[in-house]
Amino acid sequence: MAEPLFRRLALLGIGLIGSSLARRARAGGDLAGEIIAYAPSEATRARVLELGLADRVEADPARAVAGADGVLLCAPVGAFAGLAEAIAPHLARGAILSDVGSTKQSVLRDVGPHVPAGVHFIPGHPLAGTEHSGPDAGFATLFEGRWTLLTPPPDTDAAALARLTEFWRRCGAMVKTMDAAHHDRVLAIVSHLPHLLAFTICGTADDLADESRQEVLEFAASGFRDFTRIAASDPVMWRDVFLNNREALLEMLARFTEDAQAMARAVRWGDGAYIEDKVERGRKIRRGLIELKQA
Amino acid sequence: MAEPLFRRLALLGIGLIGSSLARRARAGGDLAGEIIAYAPSEATRARVLELGLADRVEADPARAVAGADGVLLCAPVGAFAGLAEAIAPHLARGAILSDVGSTKQSVLRDVGPHVPAGVHFIPGHPLAGTEHSGPDAGFATLFEGRWTLLTPPPDTDAAALARLTEFWRRCGAMVKTMDAAHHDRVLAIVSHLPHLLAFTICGTADDLADESRQEVLEFAASGFRDFTRIAASDPVMWRDVFLNNREALLEMLARFTEDAQAMARAVRWGDGAYIEDKVERGRKIRRGLIELKQA
Repeated sequence: MAEPLFRRLALLGIGLIGSSLARRARAGGDLAGEIIAYAPSEATRARVLELGLADRVEADPARAVAGADGVLLCAPVGAFAGLAEAIAPHLARGAILSDVGSTKQSVLRDVGPHVPAGVHFIPGHPLAGTEHSGPDAGFATLFEGRWTLLTPPPDTDAAALARLTEFWRRCGAMVKTMDAAHHDRVLAIVSHLPHLLAFTICGTADDLADESRQEVLEFAASGFRDFTRIAASDPVMWRDVFLNNREALLEMLARFTEDAQAMARAVRWGDGAYIEDKVERGRKIRRGLIELKQA
Repeated sequence: MAEPLFRRLALLGIGLIGSSLARRARAGGDLAGEIIAYAPSEATRARVLELGLADRVEADPARAVAGADGVLLCAPVGAFAGLAEAIAPHLARGAILSDVGSTKQSVLRDVGPHVPAGVHFIPGHPLAGTEHSGPDAGFATLFEGRWTLLTPPPDTDAAALARLTEFWRRCGAMVKTMDAAHHDRVLAIVSHLPHLLAFTICGTADDLADESRQEVLEFAASGFRDFTRIAASDPVMWRDVFLNNREALLEMLARFTEDAQAMARAVRWGDGAYIEDKVERGRKIRRGLIELKQA
């Protein structure tokens, strides 16, 4: 058995991602000697203890990080600025501070200024999740075979980066480092925009007259069913993602809207060749995904 | 074993849906005494014989329907007008003529005028499918537990409607009759618009600069993956669906676009409450689906 990478790991937020990390850490002795969980809600703290996900739960994030050599922000990204401010004076020298948020420029902006000297700040993002949320939703194998992207600021300590990389590898993830702005742009098209479209179409359907709405539910063909699976995700998490990747998301939505309008025009004017070509491109991307074994 | 509902069943087109019906008919003796398949392509006809899906294959639709007491159009809906014209003089008196197309007003428009007196014309649409196509893609259980919608014109013969209903019930489907215009409107939102959005976002991603495109494939998070599954469907089938449900699809896309723009505005101006509310509605629809056991 490998030595634990962190003597004491503090998880600030313990929903789907945080509780999956806790379960993985519990399953082996190779990640953390001790797990401390912070959750703002009394009910969550009680549930975390019931599930045996942490050695200690705290209602105060400052108490949770005291003496921890690994600290992971696992709350919605909109809560990061407040958390960073609260924990900054209590972070141990030499600790690694990271996160699992879906937007990375916002984390540099909101957390970066609070990080004291001697603490290694390396934002991260595991590309893993389900449409479920809360501490009951996690599972130890969530990260296996999935990417975790790290966006280390310039001059990040190489040993700290290697240690965090090893942490995710032990979770089963493939790890890649990239620039935060590039991360946000890629995620805007592969994840944030699809979620925005899914949430929107559910609202559009919900606005139909009562009779049609019932039938929308009754006859949901595969297209709509897949959309609602995406759309069943956590409202606060996604609100924060959208607001914290505003520029890239709005740019991708603008590009998408132009393309959708071009498709609408082809439908209106009966341009079958244009429609066929677009569907053919979808197939091509799909084949690419299958070749990369991500499908 | 129940008597076969049709002495001779002609399947005009034998891709995913047609070959699933053929497999189901082969699996039991209760649907068809004999199966005749029409396919315009030599390769498909050879493959259908290899797979043992039909007793006879025909390159001429008129020959395929001769003497058949059940005729199902299983080609892309854009081919229906030509097929109807070709087979009309050869349909047997008393035969049931139906189809499996995703648009129903267009079928009334394209097929209806050709139907000779004494032939029972009842358009239908099984809400079942996968992203695969062709005679190898079908399977006998495709329709089990799924809806089939029938849109009988006024004055449809009650016995013929009962017989076609029984045909789909024996395939495992739940059957409902409705007005063709209402069908097209409901399908526009539950199926046609989601597919249009999925095809479009694949194109939007494909248009990104080369470096990003590679990473779109590499880091496809769950959102985009689900979209590409939808987008992997048959180009000609979907071209025909879009062009033959033009009005309802464009109306639903216009409603959707207004809603997406409202979401964009909320993102731009930081209206978190609006975004949260929309995500919450998505969850509500999802819960509704789960309660209806369609999820």
